[in-house]
Amino acid sequence: MILAPPPMPPAYDSGDTAWLLAATAMVLLMTPGLAFFYGGMVRTRHVLMMIKMSFAALAFGTVVWWAIGYTLAFGPDAGGAGLIGTLDHAFLHDVELNTLSGAIPTYIYATFQMGFAIVTVALISGSIADRATMKGWLLFVPLWLILVYVPVAHWVFSPDGWIHDKLGALDFAGGLPVELNSGVAGLAVALVLRAPRDFARREERPNNIPLVVIGVGLLWFGWFGFNSGSALNDQGTAAAAFINTQLGAAGAMVTWPLVERLRTGRVTTTGVVSSAVAGMVAITPACGEIDPLGAVVTGLVTGVVCAYAITLKYRFGIDDTLDVVGVHGVGGLTGLIMVGLFATARISGREGLFYGGGWGLLGRQVVAILAVAAFSFLLTWILAKLVDMAVGFRSRDAYDKVPGEEVERAYDFQTAERLGALVSDRAAGSDSELVHEIRRLLRDREDAK
Amino acid sequence: MILAPPPMPPAYDSGDTAWLLAATAMVLLMTPGLAFFYGGMVRTRHVLMMIKMSFAALAFGTVVWWAIGYTLAFGPDAGGAGLIGTLDHAFLHDVELNTLSGAIPTYIYATFQMGFAIVTVALISGSIADRATMKGWLLFVPLWLILVYVPVAHWVFSPDGWIHDKLGALDFAGGLPVELNSGVAGLAVALVLRAPRDFARREERPNNIPLVVIGVGLLWFGWFGFNSGSALNDQGTAAAAFINTQLGAAGAMVTWPLVERLRTGRVTTTGVVSSAVAGMVAITPACGEIDPLGAVVTGLVTGVVCAYAITLKYRFGIDDTLDVVGVHGVGGLTGLIMVGLFATARISGREGLFYGGGWGLLGRQVVAILAVAAFSFLLTWILAKLVDMAVGFRSRDAYDKVPGEEVERAYDFQTAERLGALVSDRAAGSDSELVHEIRRLLRDREDAK
Amino acid sequence: MILAPPPMPPAYDSGDTAWLLAATAMVLLMTPGLAFFYGGMVRTRHVLMMIKMSFAALAFGTVVWWAIGYTLAFGPDAGGAGLIGTLDHAFLHDVELNTLSGAIPTYIYATFQMGFAIVTVALISGSIADRATMKGWLLFVPLWLILVYVPVAHWVFSPDGWIHDKLGALDFAGGLPVELNSGVAGLAVALVLRAPRDFARREERPNNIPLVVIGVGLLWFGWFGFNSGSALNDQGTAAAAFINTQLGAAGAMVTWPLVERLRTGRVTTTGVVSSAVAGMVAITPACGEIDPLGAVVTGLVTGVVCAYAITLKYRFGIDDTLDVVGVHGVGGLTGLIMVGLFATARISGREGLFYGGGWGLLGRQVVAILAVAAFSFLLTWILAKLVDMAVGFRSRDAYDKVPGEEVERAYDFQTAERLGALVSDRAAGSDSELVHEIRRLLRDREDAK
Repeated sequence: MILAPPPMPPAYDSGDTAWLLAATAMVLLMTPGLAFFYGGMVRTRHVLMMIKMSFAALAFGTVVWWAIGYTLAFGPDAGGAGLIGTLDHAFLHDVELNTLSGAIPTYIYATFQMGFAIVTVALISGSIADRATMKGWLLFVPLWLILVYVPVAHWVFSPDGWIHDKLGALDFAGGLPVELNSGVAGLAVALVLRAPRDFARREERPNNIPLVVIGVGLLWFGWFGFNSGSALNDQGTAAAAFINTQLGAAGAMVTWPLVERLRTGRVTTTGVVSSAVAGMVAITPACGEIDPLGAVVTGLVTGVVCAYAITLKYRFGIDDTLDVVGVHGVGGLTGLIMVGLFATARISGREGLFYGGGWGLLGRQVVAILAVAAFSFLLTWILAKLVDMAVGFRSRDAYDKVPGEEVERAYDFQTAERLGALVSDRAAGSDSELVHEIRRLLRDREDAK
Repeated sequence: MILAPPPMPPAYDSGDTAWLLAATAMVLLMTPGLAFFYGGMVRTRHVLMMIKMSFAALAFGTVVWWAIGYTLAFGPDAGGAGLIGTLDHAFLHDVELNTLSGAIPTYIYATFQMGFAIVTVALISGSIADRATMKGWLLFVPLWLILVYVPVAHWVFSPDGWIHDKLGALDFAGGLPVELNSGVAGLAVALVLRAPRDFARREERPNNIPLVVIGVGLLWFGWFGFNSGSALNDQGTAAAAFINTQLGAAGAMVTWPLVERLRTGRVTTTGVVSSAVAGMVAITPACGEIDPLGAVVTGLVTGVVCAYAITLKYRFGIDDTLDVVGVHGVGGLTGLIMVGLFATARISGREGLFYGGGWGLLGRQVVAILAVAAFSFLLTWILAKLVDMAVGFRSRDAYDKVPGEEVERAYDFQTAERLGALVSDRAAGSDSELVHEIRRLLRDREDAK
Repeated sequence: MILAPPPMPPAYDSGDTAWLLAATAMVLLMTPGLAFFYGGMVRTRHVLMMIKMSFAALAFGTVVWWAIGYTLAFGPDAGGAGLIGTLDHAFLHDVELNTLSGAIPTYIYATFQMGFAIVTVALISGSIADRATMKGWLLFVPLWLILVYVPVAHWVFSPDGWIHDKLGALDFAGGLPVELNSGVAGLAVALVLRAPRDFARREERPNNIPLVVIGVGLLWFGWFGFNSGSALNDQGTAAAAFINTQLGAAGAMVTWPLVERLRTGRVTTTGVVSSAVAGMVAITPACGEIDPLGAVVTGLVTGVVCAYAITLKYRFGIDDTLDVVGVHGVGGLTGLIMVGLFATARISGREGLFYGGGWGLLGRQVVAILAVAAFSFLLTWILAKLVDMAVGFRSRDAYDKVPGEEVERAYDFQTAERLGALVSDRAAGSDSELVHEIRRLLRDREDAK
């Protein structure tokens, strides 16, 4: 006898679930998007490594989340301190078809939150883009998720978490666990994997800017699911979070290029698309707490702050290759502060400094920022050190050679690259020797077809 | 005390809102999609400029729409003439979490319509792909949106607009304000920015056809949100608009390649994907008014008409670089006419000529076409002239040099390009000099890594 | 008088429809995704051909499905044998705005299923990537859809189909009609179009791995719509199918790279992303029948099986260019078997061998596999032969020249490619001649701009 699926409980809302299903797919598309954003930003020799780092986060993040991540972050609180969940839902073993989280099935709620965990750890790869070992990364990903991401997610997203429940700081869609956390962790890992050689010379040069923009396009699309889906329904707050996401991105796209223009006389494509990302980072904690005017101001401010922040790595000699600290750390921090200023009762139910709520909320935001930043930095630094000691995290010959480079080439347009290598290898040869070598290389290539 | 969000009014529909949230994200993905479609179509030296033009539309379109665009287009009618809205909702200052437009929150309705405004102005960039200044474009985008897009959107989409309310022409998802409007505006701008040099020689050559196809893939995906979302609910009309969108695209993909084959003996990839775009352009006004048979016929006819239309620019010497006029102008016009012929009571509630409705609807469609085309051409022509006089809209050295080209290169595979430039610069040199230069260039490149 | 749209019947569910609209758009994005996955995998000279093959499937698949495909697969059963539907709904002529399939409008149900048909036939192009004629493909696509896909879809997806109704095998989202069917058909076509020359030498070499990954990213995103949308609502089973899809992909991404590493000492990017595809293939029939633990196990097993299966083509000398047989055929088969083992009452309402259901279900799965595989292989083989006899299906000069290659080039970075061709053509020339030719080629290129 075939059993019909159990009826959904009365709290189930079909419309909310429809939006969360779509939003979850959108959030899970963000990590491939990130792979293209980062992959296009680096040199040709690093593009496949960046892609593999994001896909490793997809694979191992998914398994870890299913096994213990979800239950430690969203399971019932252990002991009531709001620090960590219990293992009650390990392997989702007790989640049934009609188990709900609010108005939506727990299966989709757990997957929605899985997408957050995956993209957060994947973000960190940008700060060590050209010098991490895959071995080290494969060890780092599951351990960082369990030791760093999962507790912070519990503090902020769980109804019992201390930041949400006891402190009362506001973070609508993950400014603390996702943005600030990845930015600070990126800083810690970048310091542990500090590079031995001349910094300026090693700066990355985008190998494929259209690929960068494809990544940003997919991230932008996914971010609507990320922010608006965080309402966990599709009522007014979800709609406000949606438009605020767009306004935050646009605001930063106005000011960042202006700053870039004033500083360098130019506006680059990578600057334009990075400004959109920075705007969405900052609006993440704020999108369901502030109104459209607040969102535009948040974007405008963040564009200025982040365009400046990404220049600091040169001053402090911090090797944050793709500006994870400057964009996600500083952008997340900016957004969390803006919540303390611009939260408005008509959207948030809470009031920030500028809407008559006094200094209270702003103070709570600062406490939350300091707590998460300190926790994330300390644990990530220790973890990265341990990983480096255990299996080696920094590639010794990172700047000359990438493991796997000889196995597959990203593009089949690299004959010119190899011509270049040939020339620099045999710089002392005569002209006729060079011609001879070029001829051989091109002929070999033709033969190999 | 934290206030709970206000309850949604009874008219609110959770399922409709879920679809509109997803559809809005899909519509907003269309402009990055357009950036790839256009970016891949031009030469390597123009690809980043095309991408930046679309992203400028995203940034400034968003801000303008929030500030006054939405209220002028969708606010209460000013004076009852159906010409323009009032400033009542400027900055969305009075939109609350539980403010509805029909069954969905106004926040998401305003964002859905924002996506239409952005992609419409971005489309125009294709007609001046290789010769606009960024300065001119940044001035043109907000002014064109306010002076041209917003009124036409009010006429057609607002319940009080004269084309919708008084004339009674039918345009389900924006054949007039989006397709015909962008096509005619593209014609006007192309004429104002007419190029000084030999037309044939300057024709664009796609630098990256897979990028073109990525763009079309995302446009196609987004178009389902655009057309089906225009029902503003997810009932039967939304479903009909969805399948009609697919059928219109497929119909045009049958006939356009056939015409191309008959004319040139070949079927190009760019032809195939452009035919899909043309089919979706034509089905845009028709998708919620005609039945599947009508949609297939619309696609088949449009494929023939547009495959022919894009050849006219050579005859008339019109510098419409990427065929905005031939695809969006002529395709939109074709679809609007097809509504007058194929509208059927079972889908539309109205009847076209072929379903017993007589000549009335067709006549109204023609009046709407003429009104929008004349308005759009005249105002756009004047605006483009003024922009050119004010800050310079046509790049004087467009065909040799693009501003910003020296700042960043789109791809890191361009050594061969630079080899080419080297050779043509030093055409008189000896062979050994050439070898010497090649060697130097390749070695510099290697050193720069 | 304008008629209001007819009210939707009581069975209509707005939330379910919202999800199916989004899911259908996602499924239709899979075929462009496949075009990039396949397009990036082949040599530069074949990339546009692969893209055109997928887009031909989109165009002709859509028209065929609308005309007779939908009604033959999903119309009322002809004669009650469960073998094929009737022509009652040809051209969807009797589908109205308020016609429902379950809780959703039939217009969207028919379009959802259309996406399945299109991607299935498009998959087959991978097994003949470098040697099919476009003429043959254009004939093959509609015939294969009608003769092979449509019957199997009826058997499995129609409530009256013999596999669903009489045999009682389980296939949640298309392991039989989509995955196994395309894999076996790929085998048959690959055999009919067996290549005349040295196999090893002709192996494809990816021209653009980031393009491959873009394809996989879009496929992954679309697969959530494909699998979870197959619930035809957004209740608990849809949510379970969603998370199981992610878990299946991740499981295979753990084991496949491990096998690759053990066998070759390396982990390639193409291996990593192919493993995700293999995992999703296997989870397709199982996602709504098994629990998360079963999904992870399915992924882990599939990764091992498919990583091994793709090596068999070398042993058997089967010319399956892009591993359609190894990934879709073998992956689909693995998933169908896993259903017989891991189906669990709490998700499926049925029990497999490991959950106390005995050998019954497993036996039914095997019967279904054998029936579909035999039917698909036989009919596809005959059809491919007939197409080859009628218009020529195998390109005679496939490995040296692709029709259309001279018309457009995929990328504008191919000067080096042409340099290579030049060298091998004139291998006997002197060095100074070579330099002369290089100079001429580069100068011509510059002049052509």
